[in-house]
Amino acid sequence: MENNSIFKRKSIRKYLDKDISDDDIKTILSAGMQAPSAFNTQPWTFIVVSDKELISKLSNMSKYSKCAAYANRLILTMVDLEKVPLTRAWFTQDMSACTENILIEATELGIGSVWLGLYPDSKRIEFVSNLFDLPKNIVPFSLVALGYPTMEYESESRYDESKVHYNGF
Amino acid sequence: MENNSIFKRKSIRKYLDKDISDDDIKTILSAGMQAPSAFNTQPWTFIVVSDKELISKLSNMSKYSKCAAYANRLILTMVDLEKVPLTRAWFTQDMSACTENILIEATELGIGSVWLGLYPDSKRIEFVSNLFDLPKNIVPFSLVALGYPTMEYESESRYDESKVHYNGF
Repeated sequence: MENNSIFKRKSIRKYLDKDISDDDIKTILSAGMQAPSAFNTQPWTFIVVSDKELISKLSNMSKYSKCAAYANRLILTMVDLEKVPLTRAWFTQDMSACTENILIEATELGIGSVWLGLYPDSKRIEFVSNLFDLPKNIVPFSLVALGYPTMEYESESRYDESKVHYNGF
Repeated sequence: MENNSIFKRKSIRKYLDKDISDDDIKTILSAGMQAPSAFNTQPWTFIVVSDKELISKLSNMSKYSKCAAYANRLILTMVDLEKVPLTRAWFTQDMSACTENILIEATELGIGSVWLGLYPDSKRIEFVSNLFDLPKNIVPFSLVALGYPTMEYESESRYDESKVHYNGF
């Protein structure tokens, strides 16, 4: 197995009480913004959350996001619907590539991360939109929890030869 | 700007007539399969296309995919609907993370790539499903063209400070 951050990344849900630097957050966001997007619309925008009370509130978004309470930073990715073509066919893919880049770059910097699903769950969208009083065109897409891992971890290869077909199915 | 493959990646649409090794294709697919997925369902499956006639046919999927005619390999990513939860809410995000990993790993290996949008465009889905006579549960998701770039290229930073908000919007 290769040894770069794509392969090292895994979901990390327990974090040290150790600050992530602003420089590292900027690098992680840069990675997100470097993602491909349909027609290069780059429809993303972000909230970086460091405020402990806000972090605690956001961890109540769903039963799956409780681990976010212990994160050092949260990055909320949001799509600006005014920037995407009217069909809205592709922005989920743009935003997902952006989120995946954020996870890989965090790994590159030794920072643990987990992707907490948000869009298209209407309850979670409403919860987060209300919390930040977001305008109608700004739709929360994913919540990424970030923090230094509490322990060393290894990733396992998920390669499965049976999923690979050649020149036909 | 950082200098890893997340930042180096850009859409490459012109390729040398030079073979990509089977080992590199396997590494690229491994990267795709290492992506996170909701409930860790890993719902992806792939067709690697090296047959020149098939490559030529697939390049007619849409007006945006003509560049694929000159690719050395195509990777068709597909979702297996039998592996995703009934709501089908999350698989677009799983498949997009998988596709983005493929692009970054190709960059890591010096191979150019471009993500050709497919799902959810019903005409493109039908075209590819018919070409490979895919069963109903297997839905084509993205088409990635791969080939060695014809020239050196540089990426530009897409970082935009105005898209970053702190503890509020």
